[in-house]
Amino acid sequence: MRAASPTTLAGCRVGVAGLGLIGGSLALALRGRCAEVVGCDRSRATLARAWRAGALDRCAPGIERLLYEVDFAVLALPVGGILEALERLRHYDGPPVHLMDVGSSKRAIVRAMASLPPAIRPIGGHPMCGKASAGFAHAEAALFRGRPFVLVPLPRTPHATLRLARSLVRAVGARPLTIPAARHDRAAARISHVPYLLAAALVDTARKDAVARRIAATGFRDLTRVAASDPAMMLDVLRSNRGAVRRALQALNRTLEGYARALERNEARALAHRLRAARWAKRRWFR
Amino acid sequence: MRAASPTTLAGCRVGVAGLGLIGGSLALALRGRCAEVVGCDRSRATLARAWRAGALDRCAPGIERLLYEVDFAVLALPVGGILEALERLRHYDGPPVHLMDVGSSKRAIVRAMASLPPAIRPIGGHPMCGKASAGFAHAEAALFRGRPFVLVPLPRTPHATLRLARSLVRAVGARPLTIPAARHDRAAARISHVPYLLAAALVDTARKDAVARRIAATGFRDLTRVAASDPAMMLDVLRSNRGAVRRALQALNRTLEGYARALERNEARALAHRLRAARWAKRRWFR
Repeated sequence: MRAASPTTLAGCRVGVAGLGLIGGSLALALRGRCAEVVGCDRSRATLARAWRAGALDRCAPGIERLLYEVDFAVLALPVGGILEALERLRHYDGPPVHLMDVGSSKRAIVRAMASLPPAIRPIGGHPMCGKASAGFAHAEAALFRGRPFVLVPLPRTPHATLRLARSLVRAVGARPLTIPAARHDRAAARISHVPYLLAAALVDTARKDAVARRIAATGFRDLTRVAASDPAMMLDVLRSNRGAVRRALQALNRTLEGYARALERNEARALAHRLRAARWAKRRWFR
Repeated sequence: MRAASPTTLAGCRVGVAGLGLIGGSLALALRGRCAEVVGCDRSRATLARAWRAGALDRCAPGIERLLYEVDFAVLALPVGGILEALERLRHYDGPPVHLMDVGSSKRAIVRAMASLPPAIRPIGGHPMCGKASAGFAHAEAALFRGRPFVLVPLPRTPHATLRLARSLVRAVGARPLTIPAARHDRAAARISHVPYLLAAALVDTARKDAVARRIAATGFRDLTRVAASDPAMMLDVLRSNRGAVRRALQALNRTLEGYARALERNEARALAHRLRAARWAKRRWFR
């Protein structure tokens, strides 16, 4: 039988399900800051690699078993994998455990978390960082340092769970930011999901032009970096955040139409005004 | 009286009008590779700075005088400045001189070049490189190294001018690429002008969302880097390439609508197929 739930991160056994870029980086960053880091991954090769890299104290054979053996579990899977795992965990009958995810959209996930059995204390999470390259090979303990880490408590989330989640976020060097799922999803559509679609569309428009392919410069490379993301993973995200993505696309489209109209009518001052406003915001907020 | 036109770059006095990022970098890269580098700039402070940095052998008091004193002149100004200079140079009555520009759109410029007096031997140019930061302070001799440098000969361009332009391009470490103005402008709209508008629109859509401003990550920062470009300079470019920009915006819009429709109808496989095609092209052509 396990003792009473630990109240500090240092006393927690932390489980990480999925040892890709995010899960692997979490494991590396948490090692030594909690009682134990226990990992599992569908791929035996990834699990072995994480073990050899010293990211884990112990391995578990799967997500359900992992939950039995830790105090705080993190689902570090793509959105589709998280939703599938939550579906399976509806039949969980083990000891109490805190459960956080790190998915890129939050509404669909916290809705699914609401149906978990009472022994699971759920909270949504999303670290705002990433790389174009996925997989444990690119994981690093410093990935979260200085970055915002969104936490989305459910009405049923105990205060102890939120407190431990905040400790975990700070332990990996990130800044916890508690916001409702809908506001997260609206913002994420604007700064991440729609920009991904745009990068893909830019590449799609340019790739048919042989001259464009030859003369594309560093600006275009940076601008389209996210188009190299895993389409299957991004598709999951887009589908789970469909409504917000649609609205963000519409907003963007209205803005672009405004630019095109001003250009067409040669309203140079109106367009200059709008472009200056964008530059100001870029410099002020998105450095 | 000047001797016969030199036939090699090493024998040429090269003039650079405008000593910003591109002109300053050209001067730095050309120093010692031609007979003389002569510079001029509207701003006395910039001219003094370039002189102190060792970018110039000699200064000229303005563009018209510069053309009298060199064999090969480069107009390294924003598109609007180039068009203004070409207008003034219609009254040039000095000795023969080769003239290249480095503007970001080419059709309007080569059209204006067609009306220059016969002593001026014009050719369009566009180095495919850049930085988000402008000005001589950011100039560097290595800016062009390994980058494509588009050359756009006019029907009236003498072969000797094209040959010298190619030598100059190679001397600064770039790869000359001779293409017609219309094909350049279409490609530039797709890889540079429309991406700029998109970056501005993305910032404009995100800036109104307080959460978006707080959680924007490195992906968004890279994606919107070009939104920090000088709006006045970009406006010049957009206006001079209005038709190609409109068509590229329409093509992009069709692609985005296709994505939105597939997402709306939950046609996951169709969308995945399109996103995979974009990733493939990104990896293959736009690294």
